[in-house]
Amino acid sequence: MSDLVARLKTELGENAVLEGSEGAQSGPAWGRLGAPLAVVRPKTTAQVSTVLKLCHEAGQPVVPWGGRTGLVEGTFADGAIALSLERMNQIIDIDADGATMTVEAGCVLQTVCEAAESKGLFFPLDLGARGSATIGGNIATNAGGNRVIRYGMMRELVLGLEAVLADGTIVSSLNHLIKNNAGYDLKQMFIGSEGTLGIVTQAVLRLRPKPASLNMAFLAVDGFAKLPSILRNVEKGLGGTLSAFEVMWGDFYQLVTTPPAQGRAPLPHGHSHYVLIEAMGGDQADDSVRFERVLADELEKGEIADAVIAKSKDECHRLWALRDDVLQVWRIAPVFTFDVSLGIREMEDYTSAVRAALLARWPASALMIFGHMGDGNLHLIAGVGDGSEEARKAVESIVYGGLRTCAGSVSAEHGIGLEKRSYLSYSRNPEEIALMGVLKRALDPGNILNPGKIFPNAAGE
Amino acid sequence: MSDLVARLKTELGENAVLEGSEGAQSGPAWGRLGAPLAVVRPKTTAQVSTVLKLCHEAGQPVVPWGGRTGLVEGTFADGAIALSLERMNQIIDIDADGATMTVEAGCVLQTVCEAAESKGLFFPLDLGARGSATIGGNIATNAGGNRVIRYGMMRELVLGLEAVLADGTIVSSLNHLIKNNAGYDLKQMFIGSEGTLGIVTQAVLRLRPKPASLNMAFLAVDGFAKLPSILRNVEKGLGGTLSAFEVMWGDFYQLVTTPPAQGRAPLPHGHSHYVLIEAMGGDQADDSVRFERVLADELEKGEIADAVIAKSKDECHRLWALRDDVLQVWRIAPVFTFDVSLGIREMEDYTSAVRAALLARWPASALMIFGHMGDGNLHLIAGVGDGSEEARKAVESIVYGGLRTCAGSVSAEHGIGLEKRSYLSYSRNPEEIALMGVLKRALDPGNILNPGKIFPNAAGE
Repeated sequence: MSDLVARLKTELGENAVLEGSEGAQSGPAWGRLGAPLAVVRPKTTAQVSTVLKLCHEAGQPVVPWGGRTGLVEGTFADGAIALSLERMNQIIDIDADGATMTVEAGCVLQTVCEAAESKGLFFPLDLGARGSATIGGNIATNAGGNRVIRYGMMRELVLGLEAVLADGTIVSSLNHLIKNNAGYDLKQMFIGSEGTLGIVTQAVLRLRPKPASLNMAFLAVDGFAKLPSILRNVEKGLGGTLSAFEVMWGDFYQLVTTPPAQGRAPLPHGHSHYVLIEAMGGDQADDSVRFERVLADELEKGEIADAVIAKSKDECHRLWALRDDVLQVWRIAPVFTFDVSLGIREMEDYTSAVRAALLARWPASALMIFGHMGDGNLHLIAGVGDGSEEARKAVESIVYGGLRTCAGSVSAEHGIGLEKRSYLSYSRNPEEIALMGVLKRALDPGNILNPGKIFPNAAGE
Repeated sequence: MSDLVARLKTELGENAVLEGSEGAQSGPAWGRLGAPLAVVRPKTTAQVSTVLKLCHEAGQPVVPWGGRTGLVEGTFADGAIALSLERMNQIIDIDADGATMTVEAGCVLQTVCEAAESKGLFFPLDLGARGSATIGGNIATNAGGNRVIRYGMMRELVLGLEAVLADGTIVSSLNHLIKNNAGYDLKQMFIGSEGTLGIVTQAVLRLRPKPASLNMAFLAVDGFAKLPSILRNVEKGLGGTLSAFEVMWGDFYQLVTTPPAQGRAPLPHGHSHYVLIEAMGGDQADDSVRFERVLADELEKGEIADAVIAKSKDECHRLWALRDDVLQVWRIAPVFTFDVSLGIREMEDYTSAVRAALLARWPASALMIFGHMGDGNLHLIAGVGDGSEEARKAVESIVYGGLRTCAGSVSAEHGIGLEKRSYLSYSRNPEEIALMGVLKRALDPGNILNPGKIFPNAAGE
């Protein structure tokens, strides 16, 4: 046991520090975690500060752990102190009048959503990992998900936060106000910086009124070219109530609606694209009428080939379950998964080119595409019958390479982590990366916070 | 003429550099500008870079100028090079499909709004200075205004930007994507930093579909205590369409609806509060019915004392004109104006206490209050019959002092500038101010960018 680990046990208690296999087993993870030196589980912000102070003095790398549901190896902690927020998972306060909730960073997203609902309020962030992902992780990765088109990403949902800097300094910036231009908005630095600039320990979240109506439909569309105008017309016709516009390419739809998948097809197979539409408004009876009329207009114009409207909450859940059943891609495993962003104008050419390039090299390859089209965000899952590093690099080169010509992003919502750092320069120019380095060195001169993540050069440059 | 000014003339051309009284007269301004060493008016980002490079080498302070409509002396430029973006005022591109607009920083807000409208799109930022304020200034101050409740502040409306750092480095971060988590979101640093971290030269703005319906009403309410539930019910009942909820205290309403003001009273005087409500949706006929029903419900419950619904665009304009006619406060001049933010729960006690304290010291004083209540943002205008520095300090101590106990902000949307820097510590703790200083020194080690603004200590600490 290293001196540092011993010291951490003395400061935080034996129970707070797990070593060896004990640490690596502390809960599931969606990616490689490596072998951390120890897993340290503070119970208070003061303890997080103590951990960082000691690690800073020792030059010891620290990797923050939330729900570890990230998809880019942002929590890979080989040889590092894994700082797990799992014991800082409390809701501290709900201010129903002010529509804010203050939580510890380790609080699970779903817990937050349910607590808001119990007060007649609504926290709009929604993503597949909702049952495990934590608010701290959502902040560190600027999480997106299903309702960005209406409510924005995590950045738009956070009013204030408390963070501990690399040297242990606690910066409490727990703003509760919607508008506060008193100096720099420091929280912005920590949001989306993947734990490389500070460890978020608490946050003040902005809540919304609980929507009084929910309407959902599932559409079949023949040809990508029709999707942009459907999106525009639906967005316009539904006023401010459109809350999701999720597109599935035909083969993904087929995958999630045929056994062994549990889901059943609400519309026949064979169309090129399917769209899940969700709207949340103020009056169920009225909004349903409007919702049906807006869709009927598109059907009449021939934009939509077929449509089904959910008639109950259960039917709504079943539609979301199709979209969420991403794990069906095991049927084309081994797979490589991608999260890219590009202009809607470029999507058809881009996805066709990626598919063609994969088929040219691997004639039996499969490419599943779905995503938050309203936000310009697509998820691509490629199965080429080869899970080797060489195959990964070749697939990455096809998927990411195509983004360079259309100013797309190699990461729409998953972050860069370890997995995409070689491709950061595809979406950011040298001056941008240099400026990120200026920030990193200003806040973490010893490069102890999640070192090696984001930056192409492990030294944080 | 200093060597530096001569060099700037050589590099940018005689016409680009105005000296002495010529510079100070270059257009109107809403606050003190001081006597700049020269006003430099670059035409390109490369020229901005040249100016900053030379000033950086010479240790010469630079103060960026946009529309100079700020209210906190953020453009005070005594002895500085005033870097005016007035000749960089072009719209570079409108992408109607992608719903983005790329503009130079000196482009006037109203020009942007009109250009969006001409393409069937909508740029939602709206504020009184729309005809003079520039996009660069809106970004530098994270402008708010009338529609924050629906669309957020300027921060939420900017997708990408180009900025020039203190040493002349051009960082082009002209992202067009709604979701882009490829590394740190650098634009966040520049937004709201009042020109102290870099000079914004271009921006990519996010546009929205042009709303297909507009509904407005003006309400009279007896007692502040009724306002929070009216806001909640209207927000909920109108689904996602509420776009403004502006409150006027009775005496402000009286001021803007009695001669010599041009505005006429749409509702009788004598109520304690008046509310302007605006909703924008997808269908005029439908939305009008809903709008009237939601208000009728509140009338029936006795929450609203009286109401009038605008029946035409002209009537809508007349209602906004009342809210915008802030200059009527000359009738109680000399005045001190404030822009504060606090929880809705605290507003009644806070405003009553401020009024009482002013009356206790100046029995004939007047206090006009109005603001974006939905965002927790109030504007207070105090006329105490004394415009001296001593009176200003006494009034500030009353207005700002009351915010400390309720975690309010001394600046909701106007920024800190020179005027409020002594009060920054009322809304930010020492760790936050220290971290702002870390950022400032990392990006502008020579402290040449708008020095003395924001930070309580002129050295940027």
